[in-house]
Amino acid sequence: MVKNLILKARGVEKSDLVLKNCKIINVFSNEIIEGDVAIDKGYIVGIGQYEGEKEIDLSGRYLSPGFIDGHVHIESSMSSPSQFARVIVPRGVTSIIADPHEIANVKGIEGIKYIIEDSKRVPLDVYVMLPSCVPATNFENAGAILEAQDLKELMDEETVLGLGEMMNYPGVIFLDEKVIEKLVLFKDRVKDGHGPMIDGKDLNAYVAAGIMTEHECSTAEEVLNRLRLGMYILLREGSAARDLRNIIKVVNKDNLRRFLFCTDDKHPEDLINEGTIDYNIKLAIRGGIEPIDAIKMATLNAAECYGLKGKGAIAPGYIADLVVIDNLEDFNIVKVFKNGKLVAENNQALFDTTIHLPKNMVDSVRIRDVKVEDLQIPMKSNKANIIGVVENSIVTEKIVDEVNLVNGYFDYSNDDILKLVVVERHFATGNIGVGLIKNFKLKNGAIGSTVGHDSHNMIVVGDNDEDILAAIKELEIIGGGLTMVSRGKVLKSLPLEIAGIMTSRPIEETNRILKEMIDLSHKELKVNENIDPFMTLSFMALPVIPKLKLTDMGLFDVEKFEFIDISLE
Amino acid sequence: MVKNLILKARGVEKSDLVLKNCKIINVFSNEIIEGDVAIDKGYIVGIGQYEGEKEIDLSGRYLSPGFIDGHVHIESSMSSPSQFARVIVPRGVTSIIADPHEIANVKGIEGIKYIIEDSKRVPLDVYVMLPSCVPATNFENAGAILEAQDLKELMDEETVLGLGEMMNYPGVIFLDEKVIEKLVLFKDRVKDGHGPMIDGKDLNAYVAAGIMTEHECSTAEEVLNRLRLGMYILLREGSAARDLRNIIKVVNKDNLRRFLFCTDDKHPEDLINEGTIDYNIKLAIRGGIEPIDAIKMATLNAAECYGLKGKGAIAPGYIADLVVIDNLEDFNIVKVFKNGKLVAENNQALFDTTIHLPKNMVDSVRIRDVKVEDLQIPMKSNKANIIGVVENSIVTEKIVDEVNLVNGYFDYSNDDILKLVVVERHFATGNIGVGLIKNFKLKNGAIGSTVGHDSHNMIVVGDNDEDILAAIKELEIIGGGLTMVSRGKVLKSLPLEIAGIMTSRPIEETNRILKEMIDLSHKELKVNENIDPFMTLSFMALPVIPKLKLTDMGLFDVEKFEFIDISLE
Repeated sequence: MVKNLILKARGVEKSDLVLKNCKIINVFSNEIIEGDVAIDKGYIVGIGQYEGEKEIDLSGRYLSPGFIDGHVHIESSMSSPSQFARVIVPRGVTSIIADPHEIANVKGIEGIKYIIEDSKRVPLDVYVMLPSCVPATNFENAGAILEAQDLKELMDEETVLGLGEMMNYPGVIFLDEKVIEKLVLFKDRVKDGHGPMIDGKDLNAYVAAGIMTEHECSTAEEVLNRLRLGMYILLREGSAARDLRNIIKVVNKDNLRRFLFCTDDKHPEDLINEGTIDYNIKLAIRGGIEPIDAIKMATLNAAECYGLKGKGAIAPGYIADLVVIDNLEDFNIVKVFKNGKLVAENNQALFDTTIHLPKNMVDSVRIRDVKVEDLQIPMKSNKANIIGVVENSIVTEKIVDEVNLVNGYFDYSNDDILKLVVVERHFATGNIGVGLIKNFKLKNGAIGSTVGHDSHNMIVVGDNDEDILAAIKELEIIGGGLTMVSRGKVLKSLPLEIAGIMTSRPIEETNRILKEMIDLSHKELKVNENIDPFMTLSFMALPVIPKLKLTDMGLFDVEKFEFIDISLE
Repeated sequence: MVKNLILKARGVEKSDLVLKNCKIINVFSNEIIEGDVAIDKGYIVGIGQYEGEKEIDLSGRYLSPGFIDGHVHIESSMSSPSQFARVIVPRGVTSIIADPHEIANVKGIEGIKYIIEDSKRVPLDVYVMLPSCVPATNFENAGAILEAQDLKELMDEETVLGLGEMMNYPGVIFLDEKVIEKLVLFKDRVKDGHGPMIDGKDLNAYVAAGIMTEHECSTAEEVLNRLRLGMYILLREGSAARDLRNIIKVVNKDNLRRFLFCTDDKHPEDLINEGTIDYNIKLAIRGGIEPIDAIKMATLNAAECYGLKGKGAIAPGYIADLVVIDNLEDFNIVKVFKNGKLVAENNQALFDTTIHLPKNMVDSVRIRDVKVEDLQIPMKSNKANIIGVVENSIVTEKIVDEVNLVNGYFDYSNDDILKLVVVERHFATGNIGVGLIKNFKLKNGAIGSTVGHDSHNMIVVGDNDEDILAAIKELEIIGGGLTMVSRGKVLKSLPLEIAGIMTSRPIEETNRILKEMIDLSHKELKVNENIDPFMTLSFMALPVIPKLKLTDMGLFDVEKFEFIDISLE
């Protein structure tokens, strides 16, 4: 191996491939170097003047190292890793640090293994951070519980880098035994952070515990406090969280090396229209960062932060992950090479992603039969605690309002108070949480989903019990996904057959169906025009985001941090 | 461990030690942060306002991370690692990357183990790069031959980082099997370079082979060529090689992170008078580098280059290696903390370094009895090839001159042609090289040394055979070191009892004796005033430096790359 590199670098033998007439972006010297790049057996062997068995003339286009996404949940694309690759690789991303937190909440270790295995089918290096917080809370039943000993099984997998975002910062600073066990197990490995509001001595403690990165910063102050303590800062531009523009101003020549990019969560439509890390780079450049510095953040810095050897630069011995860019203003990705092979051209992947359905991922919806009786809400009075949807936000309001009663039970009326139902769907325990929701708006039907952060139980909203039951049934039949029902009839469904949260069908198709369904929801079911019903539903069962949420265990008051009754005395 | 860090960081319990009122040099943000630094069990736990069991008020002095010497041969200090520590730790150096190439040439693996073990006796972290080129050439007999399988024994020692400077670059680029074996063995480890003159495709090959650092650059062009290919550049300021001033101008904000400092070889006098990495920092600042950037090169950059976790910065969870500096102009080191303990103050080490003589290091001089007959030079004519000493250089001239003959043998005369003798001294093979030398100058005596790069055979120069024999005898008796003899009487000796190249006595004493001896050599023995006789001798047997050298195997013409006769036909 090393012999071959040396021989080819010396030009004694021709290399497999030589990219001629490149403007090479040198992230070590911040220069544009004109010359050829010789590639052999997937590695860069030399820079200068070379001859190759095959030669591609880049005609003076720019050549960048492949981009690296420092933190991403593939699951947010609703696509399998291989499908995800098909949309991000043409954007120049050749390596990602994935945190399979969502699928782990459904399928545990098996889910993580699926991510690892499916990734091997495509020319994208998917490194994995093992989810640190499964389940995310004790107020819901997820599909798995991952303790330190469970993670141990996977920690020495070749692509596993370390411990995923430690959201349980109280667990860290107040020395929760199970959290400490994980920190100890990953002592010498990268540990990602997730604790934007921590400050002062608590932040010192969080960093002293070995938490090394933060991707949740949304203010300059949060960035600076963490940078000073040695954390790497990931500048995030996702679908929901778009922090990059706010914090890019903190980056300067002196601290640049401590910054990298991530998308965290990006939905199909944004991936298709905006792109991924290429979009972070463009925004950074618009924010005043020099193009080479922006590229450095997307390459060398990420490689250093996560210890990815042979990644992040164009130099002899480095892996030939390369991106051809038309110019540094328009920043269009013309070609992408992975391990020295052309894998994308003009925004089209050149690799195959046939549908692949691993048996152990497609049987994820297991529910006990739900009957109309299960959906009834006994009331002590006609005053109820109601979840209030806030437009463009994952926070909800806690509304107290009067409701219709029939025989001491809640009854639907015309005043926009719908039932929200969360059905435990991993172990068929029969656990069902039923609550009330306002400002979602919906007429003559129900909308349901098995995408529900973080435990991904089944969540259904509706204005009548029959349609709610029909939606639950449909979600069971399709093996998880999204559905909409009206007057007993399924209007449309999007099966997410992999763990009920992802599909291996083309992301363009997923996006098309999803858009159709959102459109239908507004037109047919009269859902609030200002919300995406599926996105909204997906956060209704997340008991760490204020104020009022519903899990399979009941109605949870996040501010009181306890379950409460629907009806007031 | 991690629990304790968290508790102390949160300030729930007092830390062992708090440094109050510091101006903390933050190498992540390039800021000076005013505050306290809390330290517990050797680690930094928090930055801000803290209370400690013990508190030290720094009264607004600067606090820097401990300095790191990126490449140093401890042996050049003529001192044991523990003695070496006593002089460099007070200068703020708390970690060094040592390449025990010299002692390995004498004692092989045992010599390297000695360096590792002796280092553990002092508060200095001595990381080791395993010597890649022992012996340095095939034209001399050293004390050991180290192949890949020999190095393997030590590669997993805790303090061993990688493979030491690969001087044999022809071996790399022309695929010498034994060199390749070493590169393969250290595939995933740091490999230091030593190949200043390599260029073009050969340089690409050298880098493709995995060689990652270079400390021999003396021109801006050499630096840039290597920087662009991804090598880390060590800015060297040693005793003989003083490159920093020439190349510091290449360093800028964009490429700074790829530069660090080293001393390589520094002699007792310079260590005592100039200092070590603190001096590199001062020179860099004088060369236009901002103080925090200069400190960054000496700390964070070195830690990143060599993968030293928890080193190179002041942040929670980092090792408490700290340097107190009066101000960033005078740059006087006031206090040094190692693992949170005060180990030096006002340029004085606060730790003990008692003499320590490991048995297997002190029996290094093994020679067969040398007789006057062994020193005779038969001549075919009166024309001889003579080594010409060049002042202030390790290069020699190849002089052809007429010499006195008696019965067909060389005879001493008054025309400054002395005998130079190299005696193999590791295995008592009886190998002796005898040659002639000019411009060393010397009257009525002999000077000898067991310090001779790189094989460290015994080297003696003299104007009569009796004194040469007496010097050889004395070096044998003292177990190696330096000596001067006149008219059969030893004038003075400096025993270097450890492998014949180092001593565990105080470096100040070594320096004093050495200076006395150099002085005596000029005054009593009339040695050329413009040379240091011992330094000059130490390079006379190094057959990789032009033009004419003498090894225990004979007279070597470096330009022809072959042994030659003393006498011309």
